[in-house]
Amino acid sequence: MRLALGIEYDGSAFAGWQWQPDKRTVQATLDAALGRVADREVKAVCAGRTDAGVHALEQVVHFDPEVQRKPYSWLMGTNTVLPEDVRVLWVREVAEDFHARYSAIARYYRYVILNRPMKSALHRRQMTWHFAPLDVEAMHTAAQYLIGDHDFSSFRAQGCQSKSPHRYMHFIHVRREEADRVVIELCANAFLHHMVRNIAGVLIEIGSGKRPPRWAAEVLAARDRAQGGVTAPADGLYLGGICYPEAFGIVRHPIFQHLPAHASRYTPDRE
Amino acid sequence: MRLALGIEYDGSAFAGWQWQPDKRTVQATLDAALGRVADREVKAVCAGRTDAGVHALEQVVHFDPEVQRKPYSWLMGTNTVLPEDVRVLWVREVAEDFHARYSAIARYYRYVILNRPMKSALHRRQMTWHFAPLDVEAMHTAAQYLIGDHDFSSFRAQGCQSKSPHRYMHFIHVRREEADRVVIELCANAFLHHMVRNIAGVLIEIGSGKRPPRWAAEVLAARDRAQGGVTAPADGLYLGGICYPEAFGIVRHPIFQHLPAHASRYTPDRE
Repeated sequence: MRLALGIEYDGSAFAGWQWQPDKRTVQATLDAALGRVADREVKAVCAGRTDAGVHALEQVVHFDPEVQRKPYSWLMGTNTVLPEDVRVLWVREVAEDFHARYSAIARYYRYVILNRPMKSALHRRQMTWHFAPLDVEAMHTAAQYLIGDHDFSSFRAQGCQSKSPHRYMHFIHVRREEADRVVIELCANAFLHHMVRNIAGVLIEIGSGKRPPRWAAEVLAARDRAQGGVTAPADGLYLGGICYPEAFGIVRHPIFQHLPAHASRYTPDRE
Repeated sequence: MRLALGIEYDGSAFAGWQWQPDKRTVQATLDAALGRVADREVKAVCAGRTDAGVHALEQVVHFDPEVQRKPYSWLMGTNTVLPEDVRVLWVREVAEDFHARYSAIARYYRYVILNRPMKSALHRRQMTWHFAPLDVEAMHTAAQYLIGDHDFSSFRAQGCQSKSPHRYMHFIHVRREEADRVVIELCANAFLHHMVRNIAGVLIEIGSGKRPPRWAAEVLAARDRAQGGVTAPADGLYLGGICYPEAFGIVRHPIFQHLPAHASRYTPDRE
């Protein structure tokens, strides 16, 4: 039996998703909670490993429970044990060939910038602050150069373990949601390490007027991280959702309606 | 010389606005920061004293500095000293007869309810969670019974120190901002202790279908706190802004455009 779970977390007090010795990680926290409900060791597999400080609106994980319990019992039991900065949103029994990471067609990330003169007391961990007014149209124009199948080496962290620097970017929308809030929504088959934050860094430089929109294309073409901008902070970054083939029965975030019909062709090779 | 300041704070780690021995309060924190910049004791006066856990998007305070500094120096200096859960948004020199509390024509509060089956990891301190679907139209209809000049004894905390139980409610808007978010926006000349949370408690019961919209009118007419609903939690409550006569030159939140022309007539007596 295989279970899939939707997980929300506030990344601010975590050293990222992945287990590390002597660090508070989401993976260790979730595995421990599932393990207490299962009364044995559990190792859940996630769709996308997030960095320290990065949040998730809907991470997806799977694991194979050795004990029989109803999905609802897993949901309530695990949430009772978890600390309040991690929540299980749903639990669903899935086919044995479902894999949280390898079955995913696309990932949706959301980067939120508080764009006003003063820092915020209320949003200090959940938005990236940028004081100078951003030109959202220029950022959106620039982002369109990144759509399609590209070698994203210029937007890839040095330590990135992926075999290939190629990813298929389905869409990037940049818009002002409220007077003082700029949101970047990105959807790709998968993302390289730091890829969203490095794209955000380039778009913020363009939005600040330091570079023209065309610079995004030049950075991409250089295939060289040294040509890119700064890595934008983790605070404003959210893993927003994961898209799976419909047959698995996992409810899709509405944003995946914008995926092109051919999206499933670009599932990355298993690495 | 008199200065007015706009203040944002995350109320979750504070025992409310007002100074209390051995407690972390916004007042003590702000006074200490202003005092360090002024190099002498400062006691700022606020527009609305908020309870433990209540946030402020824009609280207004005033004080009379004995030292001459430019507003910009107060802004930057105070923010350098303040902890990150309090921010000064603006500083402005005002007329000597400006009083943060007594000059105010109206106050705007915002109550945010996360309305979905599961609790949130990300919004756990900044929204009130209600799992059962709320009927927003019923809540809005009910809220309209509270508009105008009324004796709000039924919505007033036992310990409330106000001489009069009368307040003038200018408007209440209840609407669904996103699929899972219900927002109550309230504007009155002033509010009694716990008044917003007690109104929210009644509206949530009505939205849950436990009572008809008409119940809000019955609670109001009873003038008896014992006839009211539960006091809704502080997490979802925000002091959103304060409206002053234009002559003081303090920028008004856009929501105050909805104030009736006669609003300034209902300034409460100085208590």
